[in-house]
Amino acid sequence: MDLSTIIGICVAFGLMIMAILQGGPLGLFIDVPSILIVFGGTLGNTLVHYPFKDVFDAFNVAKKTLLYKETSISTLIGQLMEFANKARKEGILALQGAINDVDDDFLKKAIQMAVDGQEPKTLRTMLATEVEYVEMRHSKGANIFVSIGTYSPAMGMVGTLIGLVQMLQNMSDPSSIGPAMAVALLTTFYGAVIANVVCMPLAGKLKNRSESEILVKTLMIEGMQSILSGENPRVMEQKLHAFIPPKLRESSFKK
Amino acid sequence: MDLSTIIGICVAFGLMIMAILQGGPLGLFIDVPSILIVFGGTLGNTLVHYPFKDVFDAFNVAKKTLLYKETSISTLIGQLMEFANKARKEGILALQGAINDVDDDFLKKAIQMAVDGQEPKTLRTMLATEVEYVEMRHSKGANIFVSIGTYSPAMGMVGTLIGLVQMLQNMSDPSSIGPAMAVALLTTFYGAVIANVVCMPLAGKLKNRSESEILVKTLMIEGMQSILSGENPRVMEQKLHAFIPPKLRESSFKK
Amino acid sequence: MDLSTIIGICVAFGLMIMAILQGGPLGLFIDVPSILIVFGGTLGNTLVHYPFKDVFDAFNVAKKTLLYKETSISTLIGQLMEFANKARKEGILALQGAINDVDDDFLKKAIQMAVDGQEPKTLRTMLATEVEYVEMRHSKGANIFVSIGTYSPAMGMVGTLIGLVQMLQNMSDPSSIGPAMAVALLTTFYGAVIANVVCMPLAGKLKNRSESEILVKTLMIEGMQSILSGENPRVMEQKLHAFIPPKLRESSFKK
Amino acid sequence: MDLSTIIGICVAFGLMIMAILQGGPLGLFIDVPSILIVFGGTLGNTLVHYPFKDVFDAFNVAKKTLLYKETSISTLIGQLMEFANKARKEGILALQGAINDVDDDFLKKAIQMAVDGQEPKTLRTMLATEVEYVEMRHSKGANIFVSIGTYSPAMGMVGTLIGLVQMLQNMSDPSSIGPAMAVALLTTFYGAVIANVVCMPLAGKLKNRSESEILVKTLMIEGMQSILSGENPRVMEQKLHAFIPPKLRESSFKK
Amino acid sequence: MDLSTIIGICVAFGLMIMAILQGGPLGLFIDVPSILIVFGGTLGNTLVHYPFKDVFDAFNVAKKTLLYKETSISTLIGQLMEFANKARKEGILALQGAINDVDDDFLKKAIQMAVDGQEPKTLRTMLATEVEYVEMRHSKGANIFVSIGTYSPAMGMVGTLIGLVQMLQNMSDPSSIGPAMAVALLTTFYGAVIANVVCMPLAGKLKNRSESEILVKTLMIEGMQSILSGENPRVMEQKLHAFIPPKLRESSFKK
Repeated sequence: MDLSTIIGICVAFGLMIMAILQGGPLGLFIDVPSILIVFGGTLGNTLVHYPFKDVFDAFNVAKKTLLYKETSISTLIGQLMEFANKARKEGILALQGAINDVDDDFLKKAIQMAVDGQEPKTLRTMLATEVEYVEMRHSKGANIFVSIGTYSPAMGMVGTLIGLVQMLQNMSDPSSIGPAMAVALLTTFYGAVIANVVCMPLAGKLKNRSESEILVKTLMIEGMQSILSGENPRVMEQKLHAFIPPKLRESSFKK
Repeated sequence: MDLSTIIGICVAFGLMIMAILQGGPLGLFIDVPSILIVFGGTLGNTLVHYPFKDVFDAFNVAKKTLLYKETSISTLIGQLMEFANKARKEGILALQGAINDVDDDFLKKAIQMAVDGQEPKTLRTMLATEVEYVEMRHSKGANIFVSIGTYSPAMGMVGTLIGLVQMLQNMSDPSSIGPAMAVALLTTFYGAVIANVVCMPLAGKLKNRSESEILVKTLMIEGMQSILSGENPRVMEQKLHAFIPPKLRESSFKK
Repeated sequence: MDLSTIIGICVAFGLMIMAILQGGPLGLFIDVPSILIVFGGTLGNTLVHYPFKDVFDAFNVAKKTLLYKETSISTLIGQLMEFANKARKEGILALQGAINDVDDDFLKKAIQMAVDGQEPKTLRTMLATEVEYVEMRHSKGANIFVSIGTYSPAMGMVGTLIGLVQMLQNMSDPSSIGPAMAVALLTTFYGAVIANVVCMPLAGKLKNRSESEILVKTLMIEGMQSILSGENPRVMEQKLHAFIPPKLRESSFKK
Repeated sequence: MDLSTIIGICVAFGLMIMAILQGGPLGLFIDVPSILIVFGGTLGNTLVHYPFKDVFDAFNVAKKTLLYKETSISTLIGQLMEFANKARKEGILALQGAINDVDDDFLKKAIQMAVDGQEPKTLRTMLATEVEYVEMRHSKGANIFVSIGTYSPAMGMVGTLIGLVQMLQNMSDPSSIGPAMAVALLTTFYGAVIANVVCMPLAGKLKNRSESEILVKTLMIEGMQSILSGENPRVMEQKLHAFIPPKLRESSFKK
Repeated sequence: MDLSTIIGICVAFGLMIMAILQGGPLGLFIDVPSILIVFGGTLGNTLVHYPFKDVFDAFNVAKKTLLYKETSISTLIGQLMEFANKARKEGILALQGAINDVDDDFLKKAIQMAVDGQEPKTLRTMLATEVEYVEMRHSKGANIFVSIGTYSPAMGMVGTLIGLVQMLQNMSDPSSIGPAMAVALLTTFYGAVIANVVCMPLAGKLKNRSESEILVKTLMIEGMQSILSGENPRVMEQKLHAFIPPKLRESSFKK
């Protein structure tokens, strides 16, 4: 489970509510018609922009991605090195038995393709296409949150304009102007919070996750390609290490 | 027919009107000169920006795209697999008969080219050019709505400035200031609604539709290319599956 | 002459002036120092940004582009098909006589190069370089209008700030505050109108024209390349049709 | 010397000062603490963003670029054609003598490399790398001005916020509110002027100059490449003409 | 240590504090709930956007990058030329002894790979991959500061909206309106300062540092590639000089 997301949201909302309570009751910040305009309007815009299925998928992807246990890159490289050694000693077909030890579906598929005797070049092309389209689907998911984060402040502004027009048409009682304007500003407030405290950071997290996942998949492609070409394991390890920061590079060879 | 667009627009406008009615009559939000400035001005700008034909086409494309029935990707892959099997058994010319069963003009053309004996490489180049230019025309259509959504808030601001200048020049009667300013703000309101509740989401939907259509066409190109090269159907299926999410991949082979 | 540009500008300005007149005399919206700041300042900025020659050229390009009669794409393809048939029957040198029937300088040059015996590859490289640099010059022209449309609202804001500072320093007579502020807002109004009603839409039209012209030139390159390679006219037609929307594709062959 | 830059800055500042003087004394627009915040703060931000050396270089590049005499493209093409004719008649080594007639260091280097017997391909690669990195350095110089033009309005806003907070804390004397707010707005004014009247247009001019210089260098590379490959001078001229607008193309051959 | 960053921050904050003190006590600008909302909220958003590890790494990278002693490019080229001469005289294996004199880990690795007998092409591919991923990690680090600089003004606006709503609901005592609004503006002030005086310039500096480091690494790759291919040292020097500005080019050969 993704701890930093939960802590981050709690910190942001916690401090915001604390600061509100210092200045008055929380009830001042709740107004049903304002909520309807901002939340409902944003939902409406999002449904015009994306088909049902995509919105539904985006929430699923978000949930899954947040729960996703990140693959340890060192472990992955270790595993690939093992496969390389096994393939060099016992032949590529020996990897058939290793498939069951592998959790990741993408790596499973790559090994299966290698065992099935695909050319290294075909294997790379197919897997690279898959990675490219995975990336496109991920970025679509993140973009839905970006869209929500763009529509919500806009609907907030629309709501505030509605409130201002009504207030300005009816200024006979000066004492009601302040509270009317306060309510008008609430929609702007809701819009800003939805965008900046929820949607934009979430979209950012989804993009970060996608990048990590793409790096893992890229390492799998490079590794399987090396194994299939029967490359020297030391060279293969050097190649894979080029993708990761120096401090994560633990050689499996004692120099 | 595209349900989510209709529901989305109804939700957004419905909630906005509900919220307005809670605070006063809807009539406060209707002002003819303001409508003239924002709608007319935006129309004028759009006609300067785009030729008549393109604006006209954009509305047509929008209508057609919203009505467009999305092709089921699994069905398409199934159909391509069938063609592959037929071509392997009875030769590529056997596909001539299958053209009539095909609805999609692009796929029809691709099969016709294959039957006419085009080289796989030529077929790919020609169809890829066509897809590239289809994409350009689609994105032009979506961009017209983006332009409208950029001009309408600008014209809204111009209208508000006109209203403010007139109000400020004539402040002898304090009681008229509020309503005058309310009317001045109406153009900003119209501009924001046109942009954020209509044009931007519609442009987004058109882009989404275009992406789906391009994916379908890409699968057709890849599939026909595989068929023409006489590739192994299992490999072809794997290739096509690389473009789509794992949960949509239904193999036509029982492993 | 480009009708939609003229109609668009008339509609936008006409409605704006109508709306102004409904609220008061047009004279309220004319203030000489404000005009000096916004128009002069924007002109100054533009001259710092671009050399004289480029600004001068941009207005020329704009004038010429607006007057430019768009080439009919079907006619062009028809003409290229004729050349292809002629070249196949009578040899490439027979096109020498056709040069005089051609209006477009670019096509003339392409035919001349073909007749002079250039290799298809050299012909394509040279013409593609030319198209690339034509595109760069066009986009420079459009960008000058974008720059003007960026500087004018900025100068409008500068003018408004000047007016506000002067008004705020001198508030002894409350009745003068309104009109002073009205005048201060005029520069913002001018800036917004120059940018949104004139420059941005014009820049957009120039970009659209450039795209059409580039498409025409691309078809010429593809066509001449096909003719020079002695490609089958049916294939050549199919290739050219890939660049244009299906409804414009009129085959010159009766199938 | 670059006339349009000087005229542009004089026009912009002149009209701004004229407009200011029409409404009151210029002294209202000078406030030392405001100047400190905006100028000093922007300088501070720029030094955090860029190393000393880069800021220093940027001002040097700006000075040099503004003084830079633009190379006449027709003259350059004429010169390259001469070299081509000389090299065809007397051999490539004959260009050694021509080096002294050449002012441009880049062209000198290109000829020297040609005379030294570099392969056409190596010559192109090396010179292209140089052009690429010249472009990067130029764009760094222009970007420093863009950064200054981004920080100065931000510091202007910071200054205005400081002024507003101080004014709002101390509203016992109503007559002081106006002038205090006027002073608070001055920083916004300074920031907008630095950005829009100085930095952004200057950055634009630097980018334009860079583009011209890159075009000149590109012509030199293409020309020397043609000379070294012993290409037909007519073809070489056609190639070079493809980079420039038709009206600048003066053939050195009488057709 | 990076002098310009320290001086820049001191100048910006120093002048800002000076300007504040001229208008009143510094204490007016300190308000604990406002600090909580802006700093805490921004921290929360950043943790939602990035995993703990990345935020932690970013601060480390920032610290290290600011302390990083820039490699002198002339010295580097001199060193590479020495290696080239040594390798030509005594063979590539002679570089083994030189590894200990080299400080830079990347250059060490490149030499080790050369000595180990890697092909020039493999060496380039591997090192280029490493540079590409170093660049990606650097830009991730800089982007975290950009994100903080985007969230902080947003949280500043949220804080100001909270303050305004509370103030407007409670306007019975007119004398409290000014100070309440002053406090509401403080969050906007904090957000603008964090973004514009700290985060954006720091992100810029990190990007600049990354570019310098990438240039150094690119020179190392080019140099080792030339050495490994046994290229003429004069040509190698020319190649390396193409990457740097003319005034830094000191030939090691007396012409």
